[in-house]
Amino acid sequence: MRMYDLIEKKKHGVALTREEIFEMISLYTDEKIPDYQMSALMMAIYFNGMTDEETFTLTEAMAKSGDTVDLSRFGDRSVDKHSTGGVGDKTTLIVAPIVAAAGGIVAKMSGRGLGHTGGTVDKLESFPGFCTSLTPEEFADQSERVGLAVIGQSADLAPADKKLYALRDVTATVDSLPLIASSIMSKKLAAGTRSIVLDVKCGSGAFMRTPEDATRLAETMVRIGIANGRNTAAVITNMDIPLGHAIGNAMEVTEAIEVLRGGGPDDLRTVCLTLATRMIALSCQNSIEDAEAIAKDCLYSGKAYQKFCRWIEAQGGDASYAKDPTLFGIAAHVGEVCAEDDLYIASCNAEMIGTAAMILGAGRQTKDSVIDPRAGIHLLKKPGDRVKKGEVIARLFTERKDTLDAAASTVRSALTFSESAVEAQPLIYAIIDGNTVRSKEDA
Amino acid sequence: MRMYDLIEKKKHGVALTREEIFEMISLYTDEKIPDYQMSALMMAIYFNGMTDEETFTLTEAMAKSGDTVDLSRFGDRSVDKHSTGGVGDKTTLIVAPIVAAAGGIVAKMSGRGLGHTGGTVDKLESFPGFCTSLTPEEFADQSERVGLAVIGQSADLAPADKKLYALRDVTATVDSLPLIASSIMSKKLAAGTRSIVLDVKCGSGAFMRTPEDATRLAETMVRIGIANGRNTAAVITNMDIPLGHAIGNAMEVTEAIEVLRGGGPDDLRTVCLTLATRMIALSCQNSIEDAEAIAKDCLYSGKAYQKFCRWIEAQGGDASYAKDPTLFGIAAHVGEVCAEDDLYIASCNAEMIGTAAMILGAGRQTKDSVIDPRAGIHLLKKPGDRVKKGEVIARLFTERKDTLDAAASTVRSALTFSESAVEAQPLIYAIIDGNTVRSKEDA
Repeated sequence: MRMYDLIEKKKHGVALTREEIFEMISLYTDEKIPDYQMSALMMAIYFNGMTDEETFTLTEAMAKSGDTVDLSRFGDRSVDKHSTGGVGDKTTLIVAPIVAAAGGIVAKMSGRGLGHTGGTVDKLESFPGFCTSLTPEEFADQSERVGLAVIGQSADLAPADKKLYALRDVTATVDSLPLIASSIMSKKLAAGTRSIVLDVKCGSGAFMRTPEDATRLAETMVRIGIANGRNTAAVITNMDIPLGHAIGNAMEVTEAIEVLRGGGPDDLRTVCLTLATRMIALSCQNSIEDAEAIAKDCLYSGKAYQKFCRWIEAQGGDASYAKDPTLFGIAAHVGEVCAEDDLYIASCNAEMIGTAAMILGAGRQTKDSVIDPRAGIHLLKKPGDRVKKGEVIARLFTERKDTLDAAASTVRSALTFSESAVEAQPLIYAIIDGNTVRSKEDA
Repeated sequence: MRMYDLIEKKKHGVALTREEIFEMISLYTDEKIPDYQMSALMMAIYFNGMTDEETFTLTEAMAKSGDTVDLSRFGDRSVDKHSTGGVGDKTTLIVAPIVAAAGGIVAKMSGRGLGHTGGTVDKLESFPGFCTSLTPEEFADQSERVGLAVIGQSADLAPADKKLYALRDVTATVDSLPLIASSIMSKKLAAGTRSIVLDVKCGSGAFMRTPEDATRLAETMVRIGIANGRNTAAVITNMDIPLGHAIGNAMEVTEAIEVLRGGGPDDLRTVCLTLATRMIALSCQNSIEDAEAIAKDCLYSGKAYQKFCRWIEAQGGDASYAKDPTLFGIAAHVGEVCAEDDLYIASCNAEMIGTAAMILGAGRQTKDSVIDPRAGIHLLKKPGDRVKKGEVIARLFTERKDTLDAAASTVRSALTFSESAVEAQPLIYAIIDGNTVRSKEDA
């Protein structure tokens, strides 16, 4: 195999063979293909795309480029959830305990965040003592015992994807559907769960801006999962506006605990129950109707909340914070964004709210930034709500006072207002599962 | 300027600005832009092309990325000829003395060859003592005194093009029209002549395979030249079959001397007179008709041959070889390819003949190969000719006897035969000049 020939083929729209893709990924992982050839190929893929067969193979090759986790002892019960990333997305903290309470095994590797707010690992580290670096044995034991374990992603999981993503990130080749889908799914395949539910975010705060784009990505990922022998489904959810009211690490943990205790925002609860239903259906082999009833029971009965507390404890976290979230404390400096007139809120750009949260210290601007767990934004009002002149729309929290003005003006630019009532946007656009993609293929 | 943004723009088909292109070329020359970003941009250009404005600017930026030669003292009279490269192309050796005899100043930088046979510099070095490394002062003095000087290309001429071409060569991004055109023209602009005539080869032995592709390239290069204030024209010539009968360095010099003495093959003479006519017209500001008459007079009167001898002497070469080319000698081993039946020769693949010549030692397989000046092929018969069974079609010359069999079988595969008479291909497809491109722009 000569890398030159592969670039030439793809440039002319010819599909690469399974052997070519596997050899290429293996050589690239071993640094035997230079970045300048790989970036030329990535750009040719941006223009000419990949066939399903190529996309499936690329995903498999990247998944097998390093360590893979063996969860076969759990059969279908091992289940993972992946979100394509949004603002105020704390669903894992709620969904995982619901599913574990229902009998699924949520053995999850999760990343740290880069951008608006921290990732799930960052959020969990708001609990003093919480440890995300378990040994493989501890990870398996806890998954078995508690039904739930979350660890940081191993550096050796899908190293080809890691290397390739870093290259795409600096060569403007991220936004290619087969490359996005294979990147996400290679890590999910390597992480070893038999069932996978994808939360594909869609809107101003997400990578996919339209429901059509999000659907195409979701369908591709579901097909990749199924082609690689995994039970896979995807839920396409709204990320035009932040999910829930809290944006920021400890603030989001607090909001998740509210939902687990039966309260919290409706939009967040609805998305969580939808995701949990699909995870239970796949991992426990229930019908959708049964799975939905089980998910609701686990949440409303408090079983999920109890599972959450056991989970935090099992990983060394101080569970008293789960019982009294005020222990997380409040950041030293608080700002407010208030309504300037009597109006309806028409829209709230999620990406800009995320940027404001990052400015306050809730997210990482670079890999080496340190996250401030108490920094963030509390959105008291959201689109559709009516506000009175002077009423507080958002509260801003930070340890660094000098960030308040910039963050406040960013929040203000994120909001638009209307004199008349505003119709609510759909919260869930579509659900894609094996049946959906099969019926499309038959058509 | 962030290189990432430039890739993103070009990916979406947005033209880069003059400032962006100049800054990018400057940073890339200084190794401040990594190859992996540049190769991604090159691939985006392969797919989305460049506007004329972008192509002109890229050429100018590359031309100005290193040393430039100042020939302004000669006004329009300084003239260069560039061939896009073919098999058996010894036109410079004939055209340059004709034009110099007519009053043009042919101050030429010429490359060494990589591939089939040597470049003009390699061919000239067949003369013992011929020196191609003159100082800038010697170069200018000789141009003024003899009207003709050829030196090896400076390493500092258009260094951006050199670096970019090496990258394109390994990332399958060579075959992009604006990139080919800007690469060639950047070196011509830097070399400083006021007039430029391009010999765009077309056919199996050339980079451009069809007259349509060759015409597009020629038009683009002529537009680039004119946009940068140079008198520019292009002649599109046939390279489906080798030009003349000789392929190989000293053998081509000998054939060139035959033409300069009034003999030699018709096809070679015709192409040379066409190129010389255009060079004289541009550099001496004559009408095409007058220029043609002058070119013929210079050739047939022997003035061009005398100029040739003065030139060889001026650069330290032994001119007795120009008077008696048998002094070049014959390679130690000679092979033959003979006709196997009474037939017409239908075609003779120039590229394969070139490869056979390289096998014999006439060309460089790698940059470090040493050229054997006496190795090569003499094509006694060409397409259209009738051959009798056993008649010699080609003679092969080499110092390395073990190459004869491979070369002979390559020559045999290059030939096809026909029972009926074969129509001759056109030798010159088209001539593109300022009037041609202006009339197309007006249309």
